[in-house]
Amino acid sequence: MPETKVKKDEDFNEWYNEIVELAELCDKRYPIKGMNVWRPYGWSIMQNIDNLIREEMSRTGHLEVYFPLLIPESLFKKEEEHIEGFSSEVFWVTHAGENPLEEKWLLRPTSETAMYPIFSLWIRSHSDLPLKTFQIVNTFRYETKQTRAFIRVREIHFFEAHTCHKDFEDAEKQIKEDLEIAERFFQKLSLPYILNKRPEWDKFAGAYYTISIDVMMPSGRTLQLGSIHQYRDNFARPYNIIYEDINGDHKYCHQTTYGMSERILGAIIGIHGDNRGIILPPAVAPIQIVIIPIIFKGKEEIVENKCKKIKEILDKIGLRTLIDSRDITPGSKYYDWELKGVPLRLEIGPKDVENKQVTAVRRDNFEKIQVKENEIKEIIPEILGLISKNLFDKAKKLLDNNIKKFENIEDAKNKTGIIQLPWCGREDCALKMEEELDVKTLGTPFMEEQCNLNCPICGEKAKNWVRLAKTY
Amino acid sequence: MPETKVKKDEDFNEWYNEIVELAELCDKRYPIKGMNVWRPYGWSIMQNIDNLIREEMSRTGHLEVYFPLLIPESLFKKEEEHIEGFSSEVFWVTHAGENPLEEKWLLRPTSETAMYPIFSLWIRSHSDLPLKTFQIVNTFRYETKQTRAFIRVREIHFFEAHTCHKDFEDAEKQIKEDLEIAERFFQKLSLPYILNKRPEWDKFAGAYYTISIDVMMPSGRTLQLGSIHQYRDNFARPYNIIYEDINGDHKYCHQTTYGMSERILGAIIGIHGDNRGIILPPAVAPIQIVIIPIIFKGKEEIVENKCKKIKEILDKIGLRTLIDSRDITPGSKYYDWELKGVPLRLEIGPKDVENKQVTAVRRDNFEKIQVKENEIKEIIPEILGLISKNLFDKAKKLLDNNIKKFENIEDAKNKTGIIQLPWCGREDCALKMEEELDVKTLGTPFMEEQCNLNCPICGEKAKNWVRLAKTY
Repeated sequence: MPETKVKKDEDFNEWYNEIVELAELCDKRYPIKGMNVWRPYGWSIMQNIDNLIREEMSRTGHLEVYFPLLIPESLFKKEEEHIEGFSSEVFWVTHAGENPLEEKWLLRPTSETAMYPIFSLWIRSHSDLPLKTFQIVNTFRYETKQTRAFIRVREIHFFEAHTCHKDFEDAEKQIKEDLEIAERFFQKLSLPYILNKRPEWDKFAGAYYTISIDVMMPSGRTLQLGSIHQYRDNFARPYNIIYEDINGDHKYCHQTTYGMSERILGAIIGIHGDNRGIILPPAVAPIQIVIIPIIFKGKEEIVENKCKKIKEILDKIGLRTLIDSRDITPGSKYYDWELKGVPLRLEIGPKDVENKQVTAVRRDNFEKIQVKENEIKEIIPEILGLISKNLFDKAKKLLDNNIKKFENIEDAKNKTGIIQLPWCGREDCALKMEEELDVKTLGTPFMEEQCNLNCPICGEKAKNWVRLAKTY
Repeated sequence: MPETKVKKDEDFNEWYNEIVELAELCDKRYPIKGMNVWRPYGWSIMQNIDNLIREEMSRTGHLEVYFPLLIPESLFKKEEEHIEGFSSEVFWVTHAGENPLEEKWLLRPTSETAMYPIFSLWIRSHSDLPLKTFQIVNTFRYETKQTRAFIRVREIHFFEAHTCHKDFEDAEKQIKEDLEIAERFFQKLSLPYILNKRPEWDKFAGAYYTISIDVMMPSGRTLQLGSIHQYRDNFARPYNIIYEDINGDHKYCHQTTYGMSERILGAIIGIHGDNRGIILPPAVAPIQIVIIPIIFKGKEEIVENKCKKIKEILDKIGLRTLIDSRDITPGSKYYDWELKGVPLRLEIGPKDVENKQVTAVRRDNFEKIQVKENEIKEIIPEILGLISKNLFDKAKKLLDNNIKKFENIEDAKNKTGIIQLPWCGREDCALKMEEELDVKTLGTPFMEEQCNLNCPICGEKAKNWVRLAKTY
């Protein structure tokens, strides 16, 4: 079987770049760095991911909105920490036609400052709360680091949920719901993750606290796929988001946000893929099952008819199925669809027709399974479930094997993956760890066991574990 | 029944502005003129419209792509007519963070100049043709005229199909397919339209010819909802889109585009709505049927259960149904859902339960229909079909009554709607008509009867009819 020029376990980053092109997910030749063209196949996967998000949003009563791309400078500057955090990485629109604008506008890097002035108009009383909204849009950040398809780009396909609540506790409940959403959502993508409470000096600009959703890439680097923020009333004050409670008192709302990006697709490619191509979780595969007719002379019609019949059965149970009837060899078809990560292939030849069966080949482990025609409706969805599970289990092993606990710096040196160390909680101790180990602080494990050891830098009693890693 | 403050037939434009707000379609208080916030209800309708477009694209083998928002100035300037046509109305990004960009970038006003340099990489041989793509994105135009929700905005929700062909004839076939797409699509929205071949001096910048899709608004002005362009090889030459034909010769592609915008929603609001609110064609209504329980003391449970049972039946046949169980009077519920244009209301009270029936009330004409419970599956979809048909017929009458043929200028003076006059084909004669009648040239009727009269300006033999109207 043909394989990628660069092998995944030899040079992950180069393999990733190659596979993104070969599978026709995006075109990186657009003349602005970090702004890539979504090709039909890549865009179709991303839309399936978006639709899984929409399902979760609908289930939890979030309403979809769309706020303008452009934000006037004066609105943007209302929350001080926020402007500080973002001002070096925004794009500015300064002219319309030949004329300079009276006030310059920026392209949304995220939408707090576009939404919250309007939320302050929408929210009047406690009966307007909670307000739960989301949008799926592109955001823009001026990346100066090396770009990488889906992982570090300047036009970012982005999901952002924004909620307003009557008090801190109600906002905390939202955070809990967000974590449940993450659990269901990433399960469908076969992506195990860890939650980290980001350190004070590296949380979202303006947030009270930030939880990041991080996955382990095969390179040993972590990739942050999303984040959940508790804002308290940090934005409600400058943007004046006030409601009247049942007693007629006026109070500031408490807010949360939940953001995820096209990095999800980057994680799917990087974590599940192999040297033959990408491997798509059935939940987001544009084609879940490809049917390949194995044609012999004189048997064309019976094979073609059988393929159509099998497709009909699968269509009826809601599976996305394609018959590849191109005039090329079956082997070339296998090659194409393995490259594009179609989870399951059905081969149907004259013998299969005779034996009233199809030959199923799994993309994840190449296992061949004979499936009786009258059992297709039950067995094929089961196999797709097994593929999802196997992808998850393999990814979980990768993640678990790469979380490494140490008690002192010396032992942690030159280790790949996620380094977990006892930590007193002081910024300077964490920064010292970063420096000694050449890693970044991910944060403290969210909702996990406490640590009873001592900080390896200052020797004081640790308040918690801290996780550090090389990151994308 | 409560009605709008401003009546539709008294001041259409004011009525339109009021209804857009009352039905919570968008919020116009965002601090950049012409950039409005899509509220959940409006956005949901627009997404349903987008999905109807996607259905048509999928049926005709167009693939969905996404090209970057930002276009470098140098790419944009390759086709001379195009840059002339658009340069006064584009927004420029000139800075990133604190730094001026080396080359300035514009926000896409339309995507020819972003796509075609990449098409020239994708297309190598005749086997790559036809290339049929589309995207649904927001485009940006610096409007200096008065803005109006969905009709004249600066951030425009936009559909654009772009195709490449081996020659002019193949591109002409695409135009035919586009016209079939328009027919099916606008039928679902109950929007009758006319096709006009735009005059030379007002076609799309860079096009060989342009066909516009125009509808009649109740104000007597026309609204252009879309356009179909034949480019010939006008863009292929500067952007170097070349293929090798079967003989090994290198040839320029011929191209077409098809564009439509959120104006479609503006037309739905304006044409179908009445003094109680908007009226949505069932094909795009987020809620197609609202069920209102008519509760009497002691009968709550049997009514609620019946409502649930009816909803289940409707869900199963794929209709979007909501039970409004809010604790307010049925009358207030009628008011809300009439405002929001839900095509059909079902009232279910104890008597209906007893008689094994529901009371259906049509939004378009307020007709009340008793429907037997065991006939719901058949009758309700039929009623929705009748609503679509009635909306179409009313709109068709509005359009037909407003196309007025004249043989001379004097008769055409002070007439509203579309003025149709014999025309010699010369620009100066058309401009003279525009001036005398205070209207704009829509163009010549596309694929309709010829005209044997004389041009009323120069007296020469007419080549065609020309249509003129006040436009949005």
